[in-house]
Amino acid sequence: MSKSPAYDALVAHHRRVHDLEHLQAIATWDRMTHMPPAGGPARAAAQAALTVLIKQLQADPTLAQQFEAAAHEPLLGDAALNFARMRQARRIEAAIPATLAERRELVTGAAMQAWGRARQDDNWDNFAAAWAPVVAVTRESAARLGDALGLQPMDALLERWEPGLRMARVNALFGQVQGWLPPLVEHALVAQANSPPPLEPVGPFPAAAQKRLCEQVMALLGFDFDAGRLDTTQHPFTGGVPEDVRMATRFDETNFLPGLIGTIHETGHSRYQQNLPRAWLGQPLAGPHSAALHEGQALIFERQLAPEPAFCQLLTPLLRQAFGSQPAFEPDNLARLLKRIRPGPIRVAADELTYPLHVIMRVQIEQALVEGQIEVDDVPAWWNEHLQRLLGVDPPAPFSQGPLQDPHWVQGMFGYFPAYLLGAMVAAQCFAALRRDVPDLQAQGALGNWLAPRIWQQGARHDLDAMMQHATGEPLSDNALRTQLEQRHGRSN
Amino acid sequence: MSKSPAYDALVAHHRRVHDLEHLQAIATWDRMTHMPPAGGPARAAAQAALTVLIKQLQADPTLAQQFEAAAHEPLLGDAALNFARMRQARRIEAAIPATLAERRELVTGAAMQAWGRARQDDNWDNFAAAWAPVVAVTRESAARLGDALGLQPMDALLERWEPGLRMARVNALFGQVQGWLPPLVEHALVAQANSPPPLEPVGPFPAAAQKRLCEQVMALLGFDFDAGRLDTTQHPFTGGVPEDVRMATRFDETNFLPGLIGTIHETGHSRYQQNLPRAWLGQPLAGPHSAALHEGQALIFERQLAPEPAFCQLLTPLLRQAFGSQPAFEPDNLARLLKRIRPGPIRVAADELTYPLHVIMRVQIEQALVEGQIEVDDVPAWWNEHLQRLLGVDPPAPFSQGPLQDPHWVQGMFGYFPAYLLGAMVAAQCFAALRRDVPDLQAQGALGNWLAPRIWQQGARHDLDAMMQHATGEPLSDNALRTQLEQRHGRSN
Repeated sequence: MSKSPAYDALVAHHRRVHDLEHLQAIATWDRMTHMPPAGGPARAAAQAALTVLIKQLQADPTLAQQFEAAAHEPLLGDAALNFARMRQARRIEAAIPATLAERRELVTGAAMQAWGRARQDDNWDNFAAAWAPVVAVTRESAARLGDALGLQPMDALLERWEPGLRMARVNALFGQVQGWLPPLVEHALVAQANSPPPLEPVGPFPAAAQKRLCEQVMALLGFDFDAGRLDTTQHPFTGGVPEDVRMATRFDETNFLPGLIGTIHETGHSRYQQNLPRAWLGQPLAGPHSAALHEGQALIFERQLAPEPAFCQLLTPLLRQAFGSQPAFEPDNLARLLKRIRPGPIRVAADELTYPLHVIMRVQIEQALVEGQIEVDDVPAWWNEHLQRLLGVDPPAPFSQGPLQDPHWVQGMFGYFPAYLLGAMVAAQCFAALRRDVPDLQAQGALGNWLAPRIWQQGARHDLDAMMQHATGEPLSDNALRTQLEQRHGRSN
Repeated sequence: MSKSPAYDALVAHHRRVHDLEHLQAIATWDRMTHMPPAGGPARAAAQAALTVLIKQLQADPTLAQQFEAAAHEPLLGDAALNFARMRQARRIEAAIPATLAERRELVTGAAMQAWGRARQDDNWDNFAAAWAPVVAVTRESAARLGDALGLQPMDALLERWEPGLRMARVNALFGQVQGWLPPLVEHALVAQANSPPPLEPVGPFPAAAQKRLCEQVMALLGFDFDAGRLDTTQHPFTGGVPEDVRMATRFDETNFLPGLIGTIHETGHSRYQQNLPRAWLGQPLAGPHSAALHEGQALIFERQLAPEPAFCQLLTPLLRQAFGSQPAFEPDNLARLLKRIRPGPIRVAADELTYPLHVIMRVQIEQALVEGQIEVDDVPAWWNEHLQRLLGVDPPAPFSQGPLQDPHWVQGMFGYFPAYLLGAMVAAQCFAALRRDVPDLQAQGALGNWLAPRIWQQGARHDLDAMMQHATGEPLSDNALRTQLEQRHGRSN
């Protein structure tokens, strides 16, 4: 007989929830890729019904008893760690009463609708009226979570995405970047203006040919097509479950680069998913520990590997096969296209050099908003001021290209933005360590072979710094990112 | 306040189960059309987890109390009828104890695996060993259901597919067909041998062009693409939910006819699904009452409408557009191809004239098996004897073209086969009534406009005979089928 029956019951509960969330994941994938338009309301009702059932499973009083009992059972090694992760997740969940969770659903639903309309009408006031309750719910959640976890409000929100990390550390890291990056951008823009521009690929690029190309590149990058697939959607994403990863991207027939780059990015997320530890499937320990680590895996493929000369050499013949031969497809030109700098108002369209500044301004604004230093109506002015100061970009007229460009805050997803720049640091630091450890980057699967044991197979064993220590020998810092961006865009370029 | 709170709670329960089954339907559709191979085990676990949850919802003791209380509430009209359907479904469910249901899952799972192997190895004995427990479980279920419903065992199994119909009636109807059909087949074969054969279409027929053609034909037949879609699969099916119907078919590049005919058949199922009454969505009253009615809708499109000269005239330009011009695509030749008779061992490949005889032999064998007149090992001999006697077909050597050709009995799906021939009667009787009611069959949507109020919108209000009475003015009989087959293949042909 088991010495830890209560813990075993909790393991079974998590596995059961994982199985039910599998169906949610496939239903969501289908909604984004295949569902015919009239199917929406029925699908929303169906997914809501399952969400309610899962919440009921989690509210089962026997579960509370099992947590109580398992705390006194002899758990060793991974089991002890897994139980700690279970408890922390439950603590976070328990801190938000059902009424607040329900209110959050209602106000974010309304805000998302208002957001869609506001982007069309460019009407801030109507949006702000629908968004203010989301900010209120977020502040209340942050306070309750903070009380339960003994954390400041913004740290409490961060804890959901970056367990163990605090805003003081994030702000210190980001402050460093804010020191060295703007002068580098300025320098790089001057250097770029003094060189002839890269050759532009000439379209059209038929969507079907782009999709075949993307599948070839995914195969090259080690995506397992026996356990996943690529589809077409409006907003690129990686979904599904570790055993069956659903990747989706979109294609612009006048420009193949966004589709290809998006695919390379999502392939990083996908390979992480496909290689998470299977022995713990369905348990907290089997998941990624942090949003920054997940984002980091995508950025290693997109921003570290892709612009490498060795990788561009592999791309050239595939591009010729897909679209015919063009001088723009030569490896050198591809690398220049991938590293081109173009400061602009849109985060997701930003280059590797200006992207961190977009993230920093988001984090500064969300922190001020959560902590009550500013209110909803102050956001546009703060936005424009930051954009001008950090990026030198003159604020564009429409809100849709300003504070309405991202859906994160509309959905109440505060505390996620740091992951985008922390992930860039993760990516650069891992890639630098890989270069040190593996002389031949061109070797088949070198990147995946390096990441698999060091990051992917570790699941949620370590927090962000411990994971980076394990993988690269150092805790997280901005050093590798700085070195790499300076090499690519600075004096040594 | 409601005067029927217990009934209202039952309505909410059915709606909830319907919502959860929506996710099962989409997951099943995905499994058959898109899922990568390695996703199988995780998907099976996920769907099993939801099945268990649904079963737990149904086993909730408060549900039993609600049934008890609702029986004393003042229910009128449709609500009373809906409650009656709920009660009958629960009676059927309650008659099978959980242990038997679980055993059934286990033995059918094993039998399905053995079936797959046996079809490759052509080994009856190994299959029979795995199948015998399925037959045993079926007999036990039939006995328990029969006790609970006051029915003979085979009638009890039939009740799940054809509520209110009894085997005595089925056997009487089928006995009639067995009287007039074999001489008609003989006559038609002689007549066919004395005419020049229809022209064979010349391939190849690329799958992509076939898919576009099928989608055009679906649109022509009134399929609502805003609320459904067509995909590719190994075994044609109609799935999804009424608000989002998922049709799937397969394509043979050497012969477009099976894919096209399969699509027309499934479009009949789909239009029924898409037009079931929405006001009762999720309730028993919103479903089709009988398997024969569902099969009948598919056969009206496939076997009644498709071979009509008016419809073949619409097909010809679409075929030319898809595959170029060929003499075989002329309307007259198409009609002849669709009505060609070719007796053979395979039910799903059978023509309209010999198909009923395949069904009759299945029904005779399954009845003998359920009632214990024969045992598992007697099936091959019975099969060969029936095939020779009813169809004049010399039994083929491999079991895969004999008793292993259909999966129904392997899955314990006894009592379904009658639906295929009852459905042919439904189709012929409705089509004859339509001809009588609507002079211009070529009128846009004539068939759907006729069926929608008479069958589709009725949901599960009437049993099979009452529905046919409502739609055609007569209870179900073999008259219209006989008249039509004699006109197409008999002396007046």
